Amino acid sequence: MIPTITAFERSPDGGRGLARDMQVRWALEEVDQPYDVRLVSFDAMKQSAHLALNPFGSIPTYEEGDLALFESGAIVLHIAERHAGLLPEDANARPRAIAWMFAAFSTIEQPILERATAVIQEGDAPWRDQRLPLVDDRIRKRLAELSRCLGDRDWLDGAFSAGDLVMVGVLRRLQRSGLLNEFPNVAAYVARGEARPAFKRAFDAQLAVAMAAAKG
Amino acid sequence: MIPTITAFERSPDGGRGLARDMQVRWALEEVDQPYDVRLVSFDAMKQSAHLALNPFGSIPTYEEGDLALFESGAIVLHIAERHAGLLPEDANARPRAIAWMFAAFSTIEQPILERATAVIQEGDAPWRDQRLPLVDDRIRKRLAELSRCLGDRDWLDGAFSAGDLVMVGVLRRLQRSGLLNEFPNVAAYVARGEARPAFKRAFDAQLAVAMAAAKG
Repeated sequence: MIPTITAFERSPDGGRGLARDMQVRWALEEVDQPYDVRLVSFDAMKQSAHLALNPFGSIPTYEEGDLALFESGAIVLHIAERHAGLLPEDANARPRAIAWMFAAFSTIEQPILERATAVIQEGDAPWRDQRLPLVDDRIRKRLAELSRCLGDRDWLDGAFSAGDLVMVGVLRRLQRSGLLNEFPNVAAYVARGEARPAFKRAFDAQLAVAMAAAKG
Repeated sequence: MIPTITAFERSPDGGRGLARDMQVRWALEEVDQPYDVRLVSFDAMKQSAHLALNPFGSIPTYEEGDLALFESGAIVLHIAERHAGLLPEDANARPRAIAWMFAAFSTIEQPILERATAVIQEGDAPWRDQRLPLVDDRIRKRLAELSRCLGDRDWLDGAFSAGDLVMVGVLRRLQRSGLLNEFPNVAAYVARGEARPAFKRAFDAQLAVAMAAAKG
């Protein structure tokens, strides 16, 4: 059964692959599973049909027969549990890979999303310029911890896993901040993720949607 | 094999059960598993022995034979996967319960942690009083979505699950904000979680640590 995911009809990032459908597309490409995409407008996301799939009115969602899921982390984990290639077989390595998924969303993304809020939603606030360096320092603290833990390894814990996939996805939100370059091994780690063929296929697929929206 | 978790020697919350060992204790109580606790000081948390267990230098950690885990969400999921009682058996309900775990950490906790930062780390900043209402409105948006989704049901999706456990744990951080009371069904949901015998046992255990620290 081919699952259907939802994605922005017009992604606010204009095709940079920062919307949350990107990680789901990437996971499906890593495990070589076809999928359908249903594009949703900002209006449709707030209507009852979409809210029944995602109570927070956002994308992505994942429908597969009777199953409907929301939250990109949960969708990636579901895909990783059902198909080989994104979670280690080893009984101890497996929960450790899942720990990196939670670390990506709970620990690393927290200050990164705070930065997005500071720049976008509070971009005109009088405290913007004074406060942004404080937020950046909180991100640096997490990147330093990640950098130390990563060392000179390719991936966070053995082979590439769903933990790396979501971690790279979260870190890519820092692209324009310049912060990643302060931690060369973390920047190289992100580049390593972006160089994977499955990443490229997923990136191209979401870019094609953005290009079509720009023309339409 | 009895697992060992770590917890604050002196929790900054003074025993209100808001530190992240609380959810791990609660999960272990729900599945009726004994556990040992190793208390760590703030100094010890930044030393290499602890950083080897948790690269972000925080609690809790979970050690069980050769397995060492960090991230409370991952630990709760690990416990839920190995013992009956916290995840539905049904093949579709199971990933939906896990989706609520990710929703708790990714979607609901994000503005709640931003509020903690605004009150504690930026409590003396000149923008505090002007900015806090903006953060509170972001929390209200999420609570309204959660409230609508919860409706008059006892739990988020069928029987009590690990999704409810971590969601209640996240929402408890709003206790002193007054925001929960604006959404009576969400406040009742949190109270329902706190009334569970397993919650009470976990709460009492962490409170006993705080009381001993206060005396010592």
